[in-house]
Parts: sequence; structure tokens; C-alpha cells
Amino acid sequence: MLASRPVGMPKESDFRLETGPVPEPTDGQFLLETLYLSVDPYMRGRVKAGPSYAKPVDVGGLMEGGGVGRVIASKNPKFQVGDIVEGMTGWQSHAVTDGAGYRKVDPALAPVSTALGVLGMPGLTAYFGLLDVANPKAGETVLVSGAAGAVGSLVGQIGRIKGCRVVGIAGSDEKCRWLVEELGFDAAFNYKTTADLAGKLDELCPDGIDIYFDNVGGPITDAVIGRMNLFGRISICGQISQYNAEKAEQGPRLLFHFVIRRLMARGFLVFDFADRYGEGLRQMAEWVRSGQLKYREQFFHGIEQMPAAFIAMLQGANTGKMLVKIRDSRQPRRIGES
Amino acid sequence: MLASRPVGMPKESDFRLETGPVPEPTDGQFLLETLYLSVDPYMRGRVKAGPSYAKPVDVGGLMEGGGVGRVIASKNPKFQVGDIVEGMTGWQSHAVTDGAGYRKVDPALAPVSTALGVLGMPGLTAYFGLLDVANPKAGETVLVSGAAGAVGSLVGQIGRIKGCRVVGIAGSDEKCRWLVEELGFDAAFNYKTTADLAGKLDELCPDGIDIYFDNVGGPITDAVIGRMNLFGRISICGQISQYNAEKAEQGPRLLFHFVIRRLMARGFLVFDFADRYGEGLRQMAEWVRSGQLKYREQFFHGIEQMPAAFIAMLQGANTGKMLVKIRDSRQPRRIGES
Repeated sequence: MLASRPVGMPKESDFRLETGPVPEPTDGQFLLETLYLSVDPYMRGRVKAGPSYAKPVDVGGLMEGGGVGRVIASKNPKFQVGDIVEGMTGWQSHAVTDGAGYRKVDPALAPVSTALGVLGMPGLTAYFGLLDVANPKAGETVLVSGAAGAVGSLVGQIGRIKGCRVVGIAGSDEKCRWLVEELGFDAAFNYKTTADLAGKLDELCPDGIDIYFDNVGGPITDAVIGRMNLFGRISICGQISQYNAEKAEQGPRLLFHFVIRRLMARGFLVFDFADRYGEGLRQMAEWVRSGQLKYREQFFHGIEQMPAAFIAMLQGANTGKMLVKIRDSRQPRRIGES
Repeated sequence: MLASRPVGMPKESDFRLETGPVPEPTDGQFLLETLYLSVDPYMRGRVKAGPSYAKPVDVGGLMEGGGVGRVIASKNPKFQVGDIVEGMTGWQSHAVTDGAGYRKVDPALAPVSTALGVLGMPGLTAYFGLLDVANPKAGETVLVSGAAGAVGSLVGQIGRIKGCRVVGIAGSDEKCRWLVEELGFDAAFNYKTTADLAGKLDELCPDGIDIYFDNVGGPITDAVIGRMNLFGRISICGQISQYNAEKAEQGPRLLFHFVIRRLMARGFLVFDFADRYGEGLRQMAEWVRSGQLKYREQFFHGIEQMPAAFIAMLQGANTGKMLVKIRDSRQPRRIGES
């Protein structure tokens, strides 16, 4: 539960673990036990009081979030005991739901945890945010900030599949090595050890930047916008550098570049593409099966680790997708069994 | 001629009048005498040393700019003596050209000065910048900054023709009266006497802002972006508040709004639509003829007034299109006549 509204970077004490009886499903509902819970940057927005794209979580209320679970009791004919499902479970060990917004996950396709990553919201975010918002063409240069995160690491690989030169910006040398050596990025650099962002961008993007997929905002984005090519496109997925700010940070005014270079910037949320999730998931699954798309998952263990995992993700500790494993997915359990 | 690179707001002494013999056209060329010369915000960019969308004017070189003239000698079979033409004449009383980029102007259609305004680049800028970049739909709210300028005053009227609610931001009460009482804007306000921009926007745009056509940038734009509706569109035509800045001004970081509200911003230049000028000019002329589109022109007189007209325009002295009248268009003159 959210214990208090975080000020700046959230602390573990902003959250509180509550225990209670496992609820019983009523007609039309089912009960699931969670296997994996997701921590994502958007959750920082959900615990803010200000206006956003969704109502904030109330202080004292259940933290919102996605999870993968196994159905362990069902009074909903569409969901059977044993089904693996993905939906907005909240940060809890069990959830009762009428199934709205849930989908079944095929455990034969890939580890079920991927329903929260490459074959879930982060994967769809990368897919639509790059392909639909920014429309990459072969030979163009795609720059990705937050490149080693759950979304950014997929964006870069999709860019490569589409024939683009792909450059990543990440927060450690190890992340950069992973991007280049394992994921096939053309180049990557560690912004934390790069004093001259502009010079580094000039070096690694000698033909300028056609597409910027932005997860972070702030000074990195300032440096990028002045290096965009004519008719460049900026897909604004997130601004994680700004999420802990209590009021708008100051930075250089950048809109003049938009006129001179005829730039287009568009913010998006994956939900905007809800009617095309099927297309996106099919394509992402195909790329995973063919080995063209790689992913990494990183786990905390146990529901009491949710705040720690969330904070670690906000601090950039994750390479790839950060998850919390609640239970082993290979040990089915029915109500009444222990 | 450009005498020196302006620092901040240009001064008259940054320009210099030079006189010399009227040139003779050679084969394929024609000679024109200018009737009207245009002063436009983009010229501030042309006298800057930094990178822009075109090569800067050299110190000591001829100032670039559009003009309307009459052909007074021709060795180009496509242009006859007496033709009225529009093109990039530069700031001069006579020009010799091979006709590249020139078009003929029909004096029966409207006063020939309009070829530099409503039926020229400013008109096309308004037409494509609103309709193509921002895609207005009936019932939406369109907000225009620099609303009493050559472009802004047309943007608002096109928005009204398309069934939008149109609100203008301008720099004097008199301009605002003109926008509302003569041009049919739904509302307008004087930013110079409005201490609380945000409150005024909330008052005049009670349903939020769907489209922002931005000519000015700076604090006005900061206040607007936080009030855009979901899926709002920002057409970035100019950033005149920033043109005299020697380095990027600081302002609040705004890209986070783009994600939350799924905003799209796109910078453009009218040249991007060059293959559709015919369409734009036909439609603008039709609206002028039908009385749906009104325009105002304001004149300085004599080529020696070019710097003063340019500076006055940058300072916002114009209501509608600012021009310099060089000669009377109703007195044809041939070489050899005086």
C-alpha cells in the first residue's frame, strides 16, 4: 500500500505491507495468485498528487501495477483454474477480478514473466513507439535514451531489424557493453562518465540523428535536439529524469530547433494503440522466436521487495526488465492445498 | 546591404544603402523594378551567423527578401515587359534575374501587394501550417500566438472557416479589437497587460486547447503547453520572442506534458509544401473573393525605410502584413522613360 506521497526519489517507508484474508471470488470473478509483479517508470507518476493520465493512487490505497498470475479459483466461465493471466493485479499476492483488462498467457510461448516485458506492455511500447510514432526508414540513425531499460533495449533492436543505425545512451559501462555486444546496437555510451554529451553524440552519430526515442528527458535530450537532422522525429516515451522533480526543472528553450530542422515530437502511451496489441504481440513473439530480439529480466524476490525493486528501477539499477518474483510458476497450487 | 551582424534587436545602423547603376539583363534574364518589398520575421534568422535552414546573409552582402516588381526589360521569353512578378528580389530597387523562383501575379485578382501577404508566403504559411500540420476539426479550440501578424491573423480566420473556436494572443488592445471585431476571432487578449497568462488562458479556453499555432515561443508557449487537451497539436511556425537571443533562453522543461497529454509538436517551413502552392493560393484567393478572409496591410515608404520597417515588424508594430512600398504599381514605366 502507498503509505505516504514520495517527495523526490521514493523511499521504502513510503510503502507499507498489509496482510489479510485471501478474498473469495463471487459470480463472474476469479481469484489469482501472483507469480510476477512488474515495476515500471510510469508508477512514479501514479503516486504523485498532480494531474496525469490516470487518477493517482490514494495514500493508504493499493499500489497499481501489472502482474502475471495463475487462476486458483474461478466463477468466471472464460477463465479456468490453472490459466496463466496478465493484468493490472496491483502489488499483491492474490487478486480477485472480473477479468476486465486481463489476457491469458501461453506458457509454451516463452517464460510467463515475459508477459510483463518483451511480450507485454514494455514490448508493445517499444513496437508502437518506434514504428508508429517515429516511422524509421532503413539507413536512418536511431538514438535511444534509457537504452538498457525494458523498453529502450527493445527499441534499439527493432531499429536494427528495420535496417537503422542504432546508438544507445545508458547509465553504466556494463549496460553499454550489453547493448553493443549482445543486442547488436551499433554504438552506446555511458552518460554518467561522459562530460561532453554533445561531442560524444557528434562522434557516435556522424550523420546526425533522424529519430530520437526519449525515455529520460533533461540535459541528455537538450543535447540531442540540437543534433537532429532535417525532418527528424522524436518519440517521447518517458522523461524519467524529471519524474522525481517537485516542479518543472529549467532547461534551454528548444522549440526554435523544431522550425529550423522541421522536427516532429510526439508523446504517446501504449494504451493509445490498444486496438492493435494483437499485431504487436504477434510480431514481437515472432522476433523473439527467430532470435532477432533478445531480452533480459532481472528479479527481486518476494512481495516485501516491491518497494526496493521499484526504487532500484528508478535509480537505473536494472539491465532490461525489472520484475519481482512472487511464486514459482512451475508449482501449480489449488485452494485447499498447501 | 547588411552592414554588421545585429546583436539582440537589430538597429538601423546594421544596414547600409548602396547605390549603383541599374543592371542590364543578359540572355535568359529580365530586369524588374520593385513595387513592394516584404519584411518578415524569418529575416532575423538570415542575419545570424549560426546554423539555420539557409545560409546567412554575408556582412556587406545584399539583404535577402521577397518583393513584387514590374518587368521593365526582358531577354527571357517567359516574362514580358509589364508583367507583375513576385520572387526573392532582395532589398533593392531593381533586380536582374533568370526568373528562377519567380511567379507572375495577376493584378486583376487583388492588389499586387497581396502577393507578399495573404496571397503569398504568409498566406501559404497559414494555410499549410494550420490545415496540414495541425489538422483542425470543427468544434476544436485553436489558439494562435502572434495573432495579429501577417500569418497569425490568417490562421485564426482559416480556423473559423473550419468551424473551430479561435482565440488570439496579441500585443495591444487595438490588435485584439481588430481580431475579434473585424476578423471574427471568438476571443483575444493582450499578453503585455495580462499578468496571469495561465488564468487568462483558462478563462478564454474553458474547454482547453486542441491546437496551438505558435509564432512566438517563450513564456506564452510555456503557459499554453500545460493547458493543451489530450492529443493536442502544436504547429510551430516561429519563435519570434527568441530570435534576438544570443544564446538559448532558459525555461521550464515541457516535454513531460507531451507524454501525459500525448501532444504532437511539429515545426515547419512553407517551402516544405512547395509542390502544393497552387492549391493553397487558389483556396486563399477564393476565400478572399468571398469575403471570408480579411487582411490588412501596413506600409512604410521608400527603400531607405527597409531597416525601420524590419525593426518595427520585429517589435510588433504591425497589424497584419508589414510592407515597404517602393513605387506606385499603377504607373508603368519603361527603360528610357523618366
